[in-house]
Amino acid sequence: MDTIVALCKRRGFVYASSEIYGGLNGFFDYGPLGSELRRNIRNAWWEDMVHRRDDIVGLDCSIISHPKVWEASGHIQGFSDPMVDCKESKQRYRADQLFFAPVRIHDGQLLTTGETTLETDSVIIKGDSQQSITGSITVIGYVSAIESERTNDELLDKAKDLKRKLGKRGELLALEVRDMTQVQPGEEKEIPSPATGKPGSLTPPRDFNLMFQTYVGALRDESGVAYLRPETAQGMFFNFKNVVDTTRVKLPFGVAQIGRSFRNEITPRNFIFRSREFEQMEMEYFIHPEADWQKEHRAWIDWCKNWLVSIGLPAEMLSEYDHPKAKLAFYSRGTTDIMFSYPFGVQELWGIAARGDYDLQQHIKHSGKMLEYFDEATKTKVIPHVIEPAVGVDRIFLAVLCSAYYEDVVEGEKRTVLRLHPRLAPIKAGIFPLVKNKPELLARAEGLYKKLKRRWNVFWDTGGAIGRRYRRMDEIGTPFCITVDFETIEKDGTVTLRERDSTKQVRLSEDELIAHLSREIDGV
Amino acid sequence: MDTIVALCKRRGFVYASSEIYGGLNGFFDYGPLGSELRRNIRNAWWEDMVHRRDDIVGLDCSIISHPKVWEASGHIQGFSDPMVDCKESKQRYRADQLFFAPVRIHDGQLLTTGETTLETDSVIIKGDSQQSITGSITVIGYVSAIESERTNDELLDKAKDLKRKLGKRGELLALEVRDMTQVQPGEEKEIPSPATGKPGSLTPPRDFNLMFQTYVGALRDESGVAYLRPETAQGMFFNFKNVVDTTRVKLPFGVAQIGRSFRNEITPRNFIFRSREFEQMEMEYFIHPEADWQKEHRAWIDWCKNWLVSIGLPAEMLSEYDHPKAKLAFYSRGTTDIMFSYPFGVQELWGIAARGDYDLQQHIKHSGKMLEYFDEATKTKVIPHVIEPAVGVDRIFLAVLCSAYYEDVVEGEKRTVLRLHPRLAPIKAGIFPLVKNKPELLARAEGLYKKLKRRWNVFWDTGGAIGRRYRRMDEIGTPFCITVDFETIEKDGTVTLRERDSTKQVRLSEDELIAHLSREIDGV
Repeated sequence: MDTIVALCKRRGFVYASSEIYGGLNGFFDYGPLGSELRRNIRNAWWEDMVHRRDDIVGLDCSIISHPKVWEASGHIQGFSDPMVDCKESKQRYRADQLFFAPVRIHDGQLLTTGETTLETDSVIIKGDSQQSITGSITVIGYVSAIESERTNDELLDKAKDLKRKLGKRGELLALEVRDMTQVQPGEEKEIPSPATGKPGSLTPPRDFNLMFQTYVGALRDESGVAYLRPETAQGMFFNFKNVVDTTRVKLPFGVAQIGRSFRNEITPRNFIFRSREFEQMEMEYFIHPEADWQKEHRAWIDWCKNWLVSIGLPAEMLSEYDHPKAKLAFYSRGTTDIMFSYPFGVQELWGIAARGDYDLQQHIKHSGKMLEYFDEATKTKVIPHVIEPAVGVDRIFLAVLCSAYYEDVVEGEKRTVLRLHPRLAPIKAGIFPLVKNKPELLARAEGLYKKLKRRWNVFWDTGGAIGRRYRRMDEIGTPFCITVDFETIEKDGTVTLRERDSTKQVRLSEDELIAHLSREIDGV
Repeated sequence: MDTIVALCKRRGFVYASSEIYGGLNGFFDYGPLGSELRRNIRNAWWEDMVHRRDDIVGLDCSIISHPKVWEASGHIQGFSDPMVDCKESKQRYRADQLFFAPVRIHDGQLLTTGETTLETDSVIIKGDSQQSITGSITVIGYVSAIESERTNDELLDKAKDLKRKLGKRGELLALEVRDMTQVQPGEEKEIPSPATGKPGSLTPPRDFNLMFQTYVGALRDESGVAYLRPETAQGMFFNFKNVVDTTRVKLPFGVAQIGRSFRNEITPRNFIFRSREFEQMEMEYFIHPEADWQKEHRAWIDWCKNWLVSIGLPAEMLSEYDHPKAKLAFYSRGTTDIMFSYPFGVQELWGIAARGDYDLQQHIKHSGKMLEYFDEATKTKVIPHVIEPAVGVDRIFLAVLCSAYYEDVVEGEKRTVLRLHPRLAPIKAGIFPLVKNKPELLARAEGLYKKLKRRWNVFWDTGGAIGRRYRRMDEIGTPFCITVDFETIEKDGTVTLRERDSTKQVRLSEDELIAHLSREIDGV
């Protein structure tokens, strides 16, 4: 992962946002190559999802919309994490990342119960053991720590410190560690704040909404409150009637959108995987309420998987995860995530949810407008159900880079190569005149360069030996290098096309070259 | 203008944002056709500005960045409008849109001075007349009104009302109308609030920042304040060193970006022309500090104008406006706007500013980082100057629709036609089988449709007479209609290509058709 992050910085794929000011946690800027890769991912998705299908149209909504949208969607009520404040330091903690334990000592004898032996110098997570003790137990205080790789060690150290400081005798009982979502009412007063080390300043967990809030208009009061969208999906629901009324769509049909979304994550992590500002590609596929939703759901899972493979992700790095029924929202029929093996673990890449008619019904309820579709076949009005494939551009971006990065050996030399699909590669081809000092050869190469540049983002390079020019292109994932050499000007006009991954070279005429590139890059 | 707005709604170009909740002033959603048109404008600009040039690279920054960016740029200090609050109604007004006048009566004789005759039943704007009066003048109160087409009439009516209500005798003196930016200290207490009609509740004008503010992270205090960018340009400045270090750009070079920006306009107006959320296309062209900036500035004005013409805006609807030196910021060398004749007046479309090295210097000062370029030729480090062409996607969108809209008569029938450039048209071609009931013909048409659909956004239509299908395509600006008929299947395989504006028809083979469309749509 460090290698990928370093490459991203070094070759201008991704920078920390406003880096000269120290950056801003959870925000990123995409550099010259990154902005092209991001754009190519967007364009590939839009072309395949919208243009090359008959049943899907596009939409492009504002990021800020009427606040009632988020009442209807449930985001104002439910899109939150429980947080604990330290009233003294003004620090705020995610309740599930702040751990604590009562520190107990005893003066009697430890007994073994069942298979568990009570150890005095250890930690028991969330009280999962059976214990039996003679003598008396005293709680001498609490310890707390923020989630880390050594939370438990830290808690144990703090417990020992506490015992020593208070000059208590007796043996330390194993710590029963909980997080703050499991705190008992009133117990928070006993727990030291990680910021001050002293108890008394922590609040009970309170819900903290993850939407960024702002004010629209001249007034900073309730009347002007608005939110940055935490997802693009709602746009397709509240515009459902507009789309049906102004196009000729027939069920089943989809509405697709690409755009920025914002979530005020308390702990953004894993580079661009979980950031606070990200780009989504979402599609709502509306189906007849009596359609076989499982079949449609499965079809979309397959479509998404095939699409990921088509842009170059290895099938063996993809897997599926079905959300357990018990964890789904009450209206949800089923959600399957396409998972990707990131360097930091197998994580969600693309979620495909069967959401019934919940979203349309919510907007009907909150807006008082009927969001219906007139079904010609049965001559009845229906409220369609929906299948929602939702993916993040940045997660695809990261998956693409992670799976494309290779180090191999070419002609006895180590090289770094990004095996990007030609469709996604920021630069499609490098155009090289073999030598710089031959005007006729230079002119010929420049003519070809200009011709190709009208079609694709190609790069002109006259600097250094051909081998070095190849390496520079390899490292940024340019799939093709085209060299104009003496054979081009003295013989048949053919040029050398060198392929990045195989490093194989073939000679092609200009027409053959353009046909080859069209096929490989544009698939036509 | 009303025609354009109605067409936008009817055919799915533009909807009010979250319309089912009553909309949100200054925000818009782009429907199926609008999202394609917007996308085509973006892509055309990016291709011509970045891909087809050697000297410009792209960038894609986050909308939220470190708040110090906006300190350095001057937006926190200076990006504001003066506002007046009504403390009673909590209404807020833009000071330059709230007008007032003292109401004066006199009991003497009016004299003429110079060429001005003082009329009693009229309004004098901002005291631009010379008056001379015998007898005494009494101020009996103030009147106020919000800017509208009949502000002056409204003020005069209110002045007459006031005189009548107070039972005053004598003649009403002409009103000397000012706006609230010209109010004298203390005078605001005399001016009635437009909301309540009573004086005493207005505040003096105070600056109101136009940036949308939010909080990043868990805390809602000073430490978490952040802003939605009011422009994309700063991203190019604070990433200047990143771009120089991670690419091989050589002066002069440009950095281009497309993205959403936000301004909390107090009075958004003219449909999508001045909205609160909009999409910008900005480019910073860095030049050597000793380069001839006027030549570069002129070259960019010409480039932008030519580009607008190339995407179909009529040259005669474009003009130039040079900002007067006196109104420029102290660091500015010069700003020229390309103006467009919108239905609501000649307005700014594209601003081209010569900004010296002000922006880089500001970020050097605020970040403490050196933002320099090493000039190989002179072996010295320089801080480049910049030319900035900045344009809004939505303003181009509106200009394109306004200039493309025509009503003409074809074959004795009135038709509505959008003469969109093929590059911008949401749908590039309609593919029509002449009849529905001939399987061979249908199959042939479908084959062609699928082939074209891999390349372009084309539309399949079997519904109704060919003439009706033409009309539907004309109204949404589809430049080509392709009909597969009996000649296609029975004779030479050629199809009919019908051109939207001329309505001329030619027969072409499939290969000729694809070559023709490539030329017209993609310019290759």
